[in-house]
Amino acid sequence: MSDLELWRELGQQLRVDSIRCSAVTKSGHPTSSMSAADLTAVLLAKYLRYDFDHPENPNNDHLVFSKGHASPLLYALYKAAGAISDEELLTFRTFGSRLEGHPVPVLPWVDVATGSLGQGLPIGVGIALAGKRLDRLPYRTWVLCGDSETAEGSMWEAFEHAAFYELDNLTAIIDVNRLGQRGETMHGWDLGSYVDRASAFGWHTIAIDGHDLEEIDRAYAEAIATEGRPTAIVARTIKGKGVAAVEDKSGFHGKALDEADEAVAELGGVRDIRVDVARPERREAHRFETKQLELPRYDVGDEVATRKAYGEALAALGAGRSDVVALDGEVSNSTFAEIFAGAHPERYFEMYIAEQQMIAAAVGLQVQDWVPFASTFAAFFTRAYDFIRMAAVSRANIRLCGSHAGVSIGEDGPSQMGLEDLAMMRALHGSTVLYPCDANQTAKLVAAMADVEGISYLRTTRAATPVIYEADEHFEIGGSRVIRSSDDDDLAIVAAGITVHEALKAADFLANDGISARIVDLYSVKPIDADTLHATAEATHGRLITVEDHWPEGGLGEAVLSAFAESEERPRVVELAVREMPGSGKPAELLAAAGIDADRIAAAARELVRASAVTA
Amino acid sequence: MSDLELWRELGQQLRVDSIRCSAVTKSGHPTSSMSAADLTAVLLAKYLRYDFDHPENPNNDHLVFSKGHASPLLYALYKAAGAISDEELLTFRTFGSRLEGHPVPVLPWVDVATGSLGQGLPIGVGIALAGKRLDRLPYRTWVLCGDSETAEGSMWEAFEHAAFYELDNLTAIIDVNRLGQRGETMHGWDLGSYVDRASAFGWHTIAIDGHDLEEIDRAYAEAIATEGRPTAIVARTIKGKGVAAVEDKSGFHGKALDEADEAVAELGGVRDIRVDVARPERREAHRFETKQLELPRYDVGDEVATRKAYGEALAALGAGRSDVVALDGEVSNSTFAEIFAGAHPERYFEMYIAEQQMIAAAVGLQVQDWVPFASTFAAFFTRAYDFIRMAAVSRANIRLCGSHAGVSIGEDGPSQMGLEDLAMMRALHGSTVLYPCDANQTAKLVAAMADVEGISYLRTTRAATPVIYEADEHFEIGGSRVIRSSDDDDLAIVAAGITVHEALKAADFLANDGISARIVDLYSVKPIDADTLHATAEATHGRLITVEDHWPEGGLGEAVLSAFAESEERPRVVELAVREMPGSGKPAELLAAAGIDADRIAAAARELVRASAVTA
Repeated sequence: MSDLELWRELGQQLRVDSIRCSAVTKSGHPTSSMSAADLTAVLLAKYLRYDFDHPENPNNDHLVFSKGHASPLLYALYKAAGAISDEELLTFRTFGSRLEGHPVPVLPWVDVATGSLGQGLPIGVGIALAGKRLDRLPYRTWVLCGDSETAEGSMWEAFEHAAFYELDNLTAIIDVNRLGQRGETMHGWDLGSYVDRASAFGWHTIAIDGHDLEEIDRAYAEAIATEGRPTAIVARTIKGKGVAAVEDKSGFHGKALDEADEAVAELGGVRDIRVDVARPERREAHRFETKQLELPRYDVGDEVATRKAYGEALAALGAGRSDVVALDGEVSNSTFAEIFAGAHPERYFEMYIAEQQMIAAAVGLQVQDWVPFASTFAAFFTRAYDFIRMAAVSRANIRLCGSHAGVSIGEDGPSQMGLEDLAMMRALHGSTVLYPCDANQTAKLVAAMADVEGISYLRTTRAATPVIYEADEHFEIGGSRVIRSSDDDDLAIVAAGITVHEALKAADFLANDGISARIVDLYSVKPIDADTLHATAEATHGRLITVEDHWPEGGLGEAVLSAFAESEERPRVVELAVREMPGSGKPAELLAAAGIDADRIAAAARELVRASAVTA
Repeated sequence: MSDLELWRELGQQLRVDSIRCSAVTKSGHPTSSMSAADLTAVLLAKYLRYDFDHPENPNNDHLVFSKGHASPLLYALYKAAGAISDEELLTFRTFGSRLEGHPVPVLPWVDVATGSLGQGLPIGVGIALAGKRLDRLPYRTWVLCGDSETAEGSMWEAFEHAAFYELDNLTAIIDVNRLGQRGETMHGWDLGSYVDRASAFGWHTIAIDGHDLEEIDRAYAEAIATEGRPTAIVARTIKGKGVAAVEDKSGFHGKALDEADEAVAELGGVRDIRVDVARPERREAHRFETKQLELPRYDVGDEVATRKAYGEALAALGAGRSDVVALDGEVSNSTFAEIFAGAHPERYFEMYIAEQQMIAAAVGLQVQDWVPFASTFAAFFTRAYDFIRMAAVSRANIRLCGSHAGVSIGEDGPSQMGLEDLAMMRALHGSTVLYPCDANQTAKLVAAMADVEGISYLRTTRAATPVIYEADEHFEIGGSRVIRSSDDDDLAIVAAGITVHEALKAADFLANDGISARIVDLYSVKPIDADTLHATAEATHGRLITVEDHWPEGGLGEAVLSAFAESEERPRVVELAVREMPGSGKPAELLAAAGIDADRIAAAARELVRASAVTA
């Protein structure tokens, strides 16, 4: 069989298998798979370098389906490559199958989960960055994109960053099949609109007929030969190509074909072509030089912002570990990621004001086992919540640091105040949420984050706050610290970050009134130290105050309540939190206005003790 | 004074006032204001049509500072227009002042809050859409953009949609001052890079020297004369222009000037030019014809998806109210917004797969008092969380509907499952979070949402579920419904949406075991019906099960816990929620695997009753 014949037959096989597997549960996206079948057939047979027996080989190319709903096509490719059996292919979308509705890295050949559109290309930018700047290996990243998803702004963040970083190892294949879920896209088959946009953003562009195998072949060759910038192959395709009943017709998105057997016959029947995918050359990935890991140490009583400690600890971690890398969204002089950038410029990536691309790049970097830390203002992680959510589905290991948490930032006002970040980050599967109150604690937690699986998040404070822990103290994830207690405490105040310092002051005020307050520093908001909380409630007559620089919903207060939900003894919990929209002002004014400063904590404590007279 | 002289002097006054007001608290962004002073001086003096005495006048132009950190300039403009006094100007960033660090609509001339970059232009698209398609008035929308913020993908969603909707009433003024917060932007002073991108996206573009008053004048005239597409004025400017100590220098972003008095002197001293801003012609805004509002009615026992009821109710609401409009993110055949689109095509806006632009457009539409409902999959609102967060700071009234909530969607898998939406939406100031379980309830809540202030969110279910309420039942926001109870209930199950139906089945199973379960339909997750919950706990021996198709954090379970936090009696609460990463499968398989189906609820109930033997 000639190459052309092979590609043509393989394309038909991919269509047939997309239809067959979608027929099993009568769900899936066969028509969106059929448009890209020829594009991917040529890629698999001639251009992809991939060792399916060793998906962990760092030299492998990466194939990302940004249009994740074309999963039938991806799985059909895996079958053609011999990675999965026809039997497994037909488990598509059934309970317990690895072949989920949209690709997830439960499959060893899938780098990242896709299915929320507009994410695969930005993640591809991260993988390509790793190849070019970190691993320094010649692997290529191929991203199959839908035309509909170019409406997502995140795609243009990716176009912008890929060009800026001169990622000529990255190829976007835009499958312009004209039809979205509910009708035509903005641009239909106007390939020029895509070409013009991508060119303006600095990409090399090639417009082709996505069903002309020779044009496809030449386009890939041209992409590989292009130096200094990424290539976008803009391919005119036909949705449902090859089956007259659905070809180029609206109303068949995300639907299995009604007459699957007839469609398979129309495509020439079931085939079992097996492609021997070329393997990459084995080379060693680059590693950076390291020296002894020495975390910064701070003297008790000094005033140091935890955001500053983050930057210093991260730079120290980078010195001690070759795999640590950092990204920031154009605020590195505020988050103090600039300290890392100064110390390890080769391992720092400026993502400008593009938080979605920042998270996506972090996800892409960890695909190649780098250990990314990404920082911006806590508030601006909301910009990338879908990317963080999908990173959890990707089982990605990424570390995030949000500075400028809460009203305590002061004059900048509510647009810059992270007041929902704890809720947002807690509500992710398997996440870790940390909120240190002092510089030594921050340093220890930053170091611990490097080895945490999943999404870990560190919340830092803008203001300089007193160092209260010795540099030798150990802080583990999932722990807490009782920092003030007596044998006869009247109540406990559970705080974290900035409110620990307010709680300590409140305890002094209360002591003057003869009220003894225990203070718990709940620096690990998730996982939470339920044992210490239970012991605390028991020792303090079941009287707790939680205090957080955050909205009342989903944060520290509710985390504490959940820790007691099923307990035998359930304390009374007064949740102090930010309940009115803040404005500008001095930090102390805003903490007072929000009812979370020392005075308000003390007042709430007096009221709690008064209202719940001890009967024990 | 000639026009040119006036503009020159006014530009200097705006610089001087930006410096003076930032000097008060030694914070703010004077240098970012100074770059755009000449651009806005000409706009205010010659082109803006605005009645400062009547900011509610629907004929007013709109001036949006997408670069919200240039608030000193905005407030200096207000002073020049006579809207605020010099005395008030000098309250900038002090506690209690209306002149916050970033603009908020506490000021009557501010339409929306800005300060999270990349939002002003997309919101401007919404305002311009209102002008062109709904109000049908000739007002113009002027958006001052920073160059740094063009890195945000949301800007390109705006460029795309503005061109698609032919918004020639929209002008973006890009202040290319070259310097971001921590250094140079990607493109520096390469105006061509901005011109090429905006042109490729279909805009008319004009590159100018942003300090040449005649060029500025001509550019505005050209923008107004341009028909059929929006205009981008790409202006080369100098950050800190006019003060040698800071002009075009890095390191002065977001900093008050050290030597304010000297800087003011260098700029020629304090001025008090008052501009008589031109007022718009008074015209009547268009209104759509309405007829009687008749909500859809469903028969008890029929199976109807709440997402379908959303679409039908919204279409009915649109028939009854002229002000209701709808938007969707290219999934209207899934959310059923297509029913509204079919009934009221003039009031429906397809936002394609651009959720950030969708929310921003909704915010822009409500600026002109339209009542927008925006829908997509619940999961995909995570894409726009920063926009929703800022909409709350904007005191915007927008209504959101998220379909395909939870694991019960089935085969599509976790990328499409809204599992964090309750947490995300609860953690917004003043938000309303609704989760109906049947079609009649949905219809009533959709109608109620039209009159709710702030951000309201409705969570709908993919599957058809039985209608359990009569069409005449009334449901108010903040309420709940006890749908099964006896005088001697052993425990209560608190559910909402899909889990109400599972809870009802569980109660049947439990009845067979002699366990009597009360069922509470907590359709209003926020505000929550604390009174009914308290009465329920009291009547059921303090035994509660909460069950939700959502992660355990921040959702229904924790909302219930918060309702009891400070109570005298605090029930034991078993929180059933999704605790493992789901895959694909049939809805029933996934509900079972997540431990939230009828069988698992019944098992948890048996265990709860066993573990907490009644002592009362």
